[in-house]
Amino acid sequence: MHNLSVGVLGASGYAGRELCQLVEAHPSLHLIFATAHGQRGQSLRIGKKNLTFVATEDAPLDQADLIFSALPHGASLEWVERARAAGAKVVDLSSDLRPGNNGHLADGACAPYGLTELYRDKVRGADIVANPGCYPTAILLALHPLVEKKLLEPQSTIPVSAASGVTGAGFTPRPDLLFAEISEDFRAYGVGNNHRHLLEMNAELKIRGAENDLVFTPHLLPVARGILATIVVRLTHDLDDPLGPWRETFGEEPFIQLTETTPALRDVVRTNSVRISVAKAANTTAPTLIITSAMDNLTKGAAGQALQNANLMLGLEEQLGLAA
Amino acid sequence: MHNLSVGVLGASGYAGRELCQLVEAHPSLHLIFATAHGQRGQSLRIGKKNLTFVATEDAPLDQADLIFSALPHGASLEWVERARAAGAKVVDLSSDLRPGNNGHLADGACAPYGLTELYRDKVRGADIVANPGCYPTAILLALHPLVEKKLLEPQSTIPVSAASGVTGAGFTPRPDLLFAEISEDFRAYGVGNNHRHLLEMNAELKIRGAENDLVFTPHLLPVARGILATIVVRLTHDLDDPLGPWRETFGEEPFIQLTETTPALRDVVRTNSVRISVAKAANTTAPTLIITSAMDNLTKGAAGQALQNANLMLGLEEQLGLAA
Amino acid sequence: MHNLSVGVLGASGYAGRELCQLVEAHPSLHLIFATAHGQRGQSLRIGKKNLTFVATEDAPLDQADLIFSALPHGASLEWVERARAAGAKVVDLSSDLRPGNNGHLADGACAPYGLTELYRDKVRGADIVANPGCYPTAILLALHPLVEKKLLEPQSTIPVSAASGVTGAGFTPRPDLLFAEISEDFRAYGVGNNHRHLLEMNAELKIRGAENDLVFTPHLLPVARGILATIVVRLTHDLDDPLGPWRETFGEEPFIQLTETTPALRDVVRTNSVRISVAKAANTTAPTLIITSAMDNLTKGAAGQALQNANLMLGLEEQLGLAA
Amino acid sequence: MHNLSVGVLGASGYAGRELCQLVEAHPSLHLIFATAHGQRGQSLRIGKKNLTFVATEDAPLDQADLIFSALPHGASLEWVERARAAGAKVVDLSSDLRPGNNGHLADGACAPYGLTELYRDKVRGADIVANPGCYPTAILLALHPLVEKKLLEPQSTIPVSAASGVTGAGFTPRPDLLFAEISEDFRAYGVGNNHRHLLEMNAELKIRGAENDLVFTPHLLPVARGILATIVVRLTHDLDDPLGPWRETFGEEPFIQLTETTPALRDVVRTNSVRISVAKAANTTAPTLIITSAMDNLTKGAAGQALQNANLMLGLEEQLGLAA
Repeated sequence: MHNLSVGVLGASGYAGRELCQLVEAHPSLHLIFATAHGQRGQSLRIGKKNLTFVATEDAPLDQADLIFSALPHGASLEWVERARAAGAKVVDLSSDLRPGNNGHLADGACAPYGLTELYRDKVRGADIVANPGCYPTAILLALHPLVEKKLLEPQSTIPVSAASGVTGAGFTPRPDLLFAEISEDFRAYGVGNNHRHLLEMNAELKIRGAENDLVFTPHLLPVARGILATIVVRLTHDLDDPLGPWRETFGEEPFIQLTETTPALRDVVRTNSVRISVAKAANTTAPTLIITSAMDNLTKGAAGQALQNANLMLGLEEQLGLAA
Repeated sequence: MHNLSVGVLGASGYAGRELCQLVEAHPSLHLIFATAHGQRGQSLRIGKKNLTFVATEDAPLDQADLIFSALPHGASLEWVERARAAGAKVVDLSSDLRPGNNGHLADGACAPYGLTELYRDKVRGADIVANPGCYPTAILLALHPLVEKKLLEPQSTIPVSAASGVTGAGFTPRPDLLFAEISEDFRAYGVGNNHRHLLEMNAELKIRGAENDLVFTPHLLPVARGILATIVVRLTHDLDDPLGPWRETFGEEPFIQLTETTPALRDVVRTNSVRISVAKAANTTAPTLIITSAMDNLTKGAAGQALQNANLMLGLEEQLGLAA
Repeated sequence: MHNLSVGVLGASGYAGRELCQLVEAHPSLHLIFATAHGQRGQSLRIGKKNLTFVATEDAPLDQADLIFSALPHGASLEWVERARAAGAKVVDLSSDLRPGNNGHLADGACAPYGLTELYRDKVRGADIVANPGCYPTAILLALHPLVEKKLLEPQSTIPVSAASGVTGAGFTPRPDLLFAEISEDFRAYGVGNNHRHLLEMNAELKIRGAENDLVFTPHLLPVARGILATIVVRLTHDLDDPLGPWRETFGEEPFIQLTETTPALRDVVRTNSVRISVAKAANTTAPTLIITSAMDNLTKGAAGQALQNANLMLGLEEQLGLAA
Repeated sequence: MHNLSVGVLGASGYAGRELCQLVEAHPSLHLIFATAHGQRGQSLRIGKKNLTFVATEDAPLDQADLIFSALPHGASLEWVERARAAGAKVVDLSSDLRPGNNGHLADGACAPYGLTELYRDKVRGADIVANPGCYPTAILLALHPLVEKKLLEPQSTIPVSAASGVTGAGFTPRPDLLFAEISEDFRAYGVGNNHRHLLEMNAELKIRGAENDLVFTPHLLPVARGILATIVVRLTHDLDDPLGPWRETFGEEPFIQLTETTPALRDVVRTNSVRISVAKAANTTAPTLIITSAMDNLTKGAAGQALQNANLMLGLEEQLGLAA
């Protein structure tokens, strides 16, 4: 059963710990190492086991069938190359190899973008996959049917107001992330449309031919997990069945749920699902939709989607070890 | 000192209780009654005093110089008329007399709209004032300078993503507002652009000549108090100084703070202030601003603004009894 | 696989919903009905399925191998009898048949008390089991080794300060359980040592020969799930190894974890485990221990333990479908 | 009016910031400096003003009538001496000079213990006051009437289970205090009866002749502010009127409220009040009381009580600038 060996680089953060837990609970994977900068020798309880962190330098890369890198942006690429040279497949959770970030492998190749529902075929055969950012996952999936069907009003502005739980800011002990600072608070951050994830989303939309001004404003929620994006789009024409394009595009997807009722974080946390609902905007002159998209930032937005990609790369069933 | 008598109708809800507390702490007002449907005889601690609710029918309306009505929408207007007939000035916190709600007084007159910063002169001489809704206060103030200066791109969509603490949903024991349902959750509600407050905002914007599609999506936050609105607007032309229009319009306002940093709920809760910040949206082709507006839904969004209006109606200093 | 049929009476509350989820995810059980007073026809999403509530009167009791009753105290016993008459085994989550509550079956028999770790043998052969209350589970397990080994100072007071998440108060829409009332608050309740669960604990301690004044003060936490009990005991004599009695008594128990570090709610929520730690109290003249015991009130404190008992009653492996 | 000059040493922490806010809002005090180690030059918004931190070394100690030291334990005493040498009165919020901590001034003198309700006369004439810890304030006030009236059963154990909001742990960016770690969690800490505050409480109880084993277990709450202590005591004999001793001792105290209903954090946060309720424990053989005591750890437990003491030291009215 547990016949494939997996390692996690950068396992002490929230995404890294989530990866370790998912791997440990996975029926066909076996965790052989987890690295943590500066915490070597410390241990973490994963299910019923105690996991001891090793230094990244000491990780036996060549013994792993697949390695997840949850190392920080900028630091990851070097280790992705090392892991690849050691013969392992790699899922890189950093932004280093994502579209719009100007990263590429030493041989000049680009890694497939691991937005699984859009690039399943490329992921299946890949040795290296660039796992998407959390916000781009929720937002690009929500917009995809309109992009494919060219239903977005050309040149229109697409405002995206999104909110994330604080695990999205990482396990870094910043004073502004202390409980007493976050509880009973809410705020936008990175206001001005220049968040790192905007590059990734714009590059991906451009590839697919969308010509729109994405205006992305993230907010920080007093919750641990979850992302909700609320998107307003002007269409080329009115739709009789607003949810139709999504149903046609995603009807069979195991991890995309299209709902009549507006999704809430509690519907999706601790699952790998994205829930999307669509409503016509009343009281407007232009044909306008309001799309809401909810998912868990640590699961579908990071570790879960990474595992979904890893399953495909290893020839396993895509849904293995993942809750819908 | 405490020479003006005040009553509160509908005092058992969150806005009503906030009113009682503000009146009790006010240097020139004296609370003579507070009514609560179905809770007559029960008492509420306000500061060091215990306040006993009376039935609305038993309130000595004729002994009050001013009466606040925090009765429910639909039920309030009748009591506004009774209070007026008894000789009291009235601030109506319900939607009954607000623009866009088709309400009017028995003599056909309209009550001034108590968005104090815009209608100060009308409020000063009024016997009855229609106190604005919470979302409209945060949003209309944020948009006002652009409307006045005709800087909004005509016919453009104005998406407003706003989030409110749960006191905005009232003190009604609904299962979906229980702590265990709200904690760690976040969701949009009333999706589809037909919230009651949209009528009020559209009516007000139309009066002032704005021709835009307001698309308003409220969200429910796991916090007790506070509203944050994030608004994306396309302009007629680029602005050198994005905050300029607000500074020119609101530079001297005691309860409007224009800030370089993005406002957070914790900056404004338990005050009567609205904080507004403005940022140019990078990475867009059209000139676009992102406006964020934060305030306390129970203070500036309800009881505080009601008191601000009452101060003017009674010939008192506008800021009396209110924290900035 | 899914060969045993199970029904849930009173499925709309927190414990009932948890039961439905556990049964749905269980490899050998199949949920055939779930009843909800006043919500017949409404549906609840359980995993990937939508479950439709039926009226209790309409439940096909005779088709179930085992029925869980999560009906309210006082209302449950009648349905326990009906279910038994229909041929089903029953786990009763109400207090009706628990020790100290004076309830008994129509034939005069008492149901075994389903504190599984203490009464495993009786549960295994039983047709009806009285599932313990949440607080008693955490507290009686924590005290049990000292009782069995007669290490408690006779006649000494045993103060138990315990705190529960708000799901412990049920899914009833009470104003005092609204998010805005509970967030940022904490309080004791039922102060005076006459909580319903005290009867159950005192009856059980008396059966086992302990002669002590249990003084139990529950508190309401601003969290959804979890119970933590902190207990101070005076011993007959000092212990070299404070955790020794627990290790001897519970060393092999799958759902009891004895830890060096003090347990936190986050260690146990969404599991069926109880975590217990023990520390000598420094700076005292009498030999004194401080015991802390943590578990999930909805899992080990209600639905999880009910399933643990059901597994035994049905001849299944005790741990089936339960996370440790 | 604002005629007395005040400085705050160590103003960047939670207690220090609270002090700055209280001083700024005080009718007779004027804040002339606030120091912050490592944050010199940074500013903090206090009410409508921006306060700029200076280095402690650069503070004009000789210009202050009174200085509050909120410096860390161990670092404070040196600055208390310097401030005193510069001619200022001092309230020391650290533990350095508190009973049981072995600290004393350079001249060998002890500072009065600023538990105001017990030592008002000594505080009034003092140049230096040792401000009590947060837990000791809530607990010693709750126990005081029983100690004075010698009602505690000699040699009995007094278990104190107390819980504090996370501001009690300071503004230090520790990973375990991040929002995502604290939310939905609860745990005891420092279990084993050797918390620093125990020394202070035991020293004070010994001075007053109580011979009991205090067993103190603090807990960490997912709230920002507030402390609740639950205390179980065995008495020498039964009391007809359980609250009687407290009423006799504290009946006239402006900041102590004796309540029939159990106090909650929300009753006391942002005030300088301690609320105490007392209940007889039913179902016991020995006469036993359950005492609950609630207050705000940053106000009465730190900055508020410091200001209460400063008012007395400066000859001002004790309640000035403090909410009850």
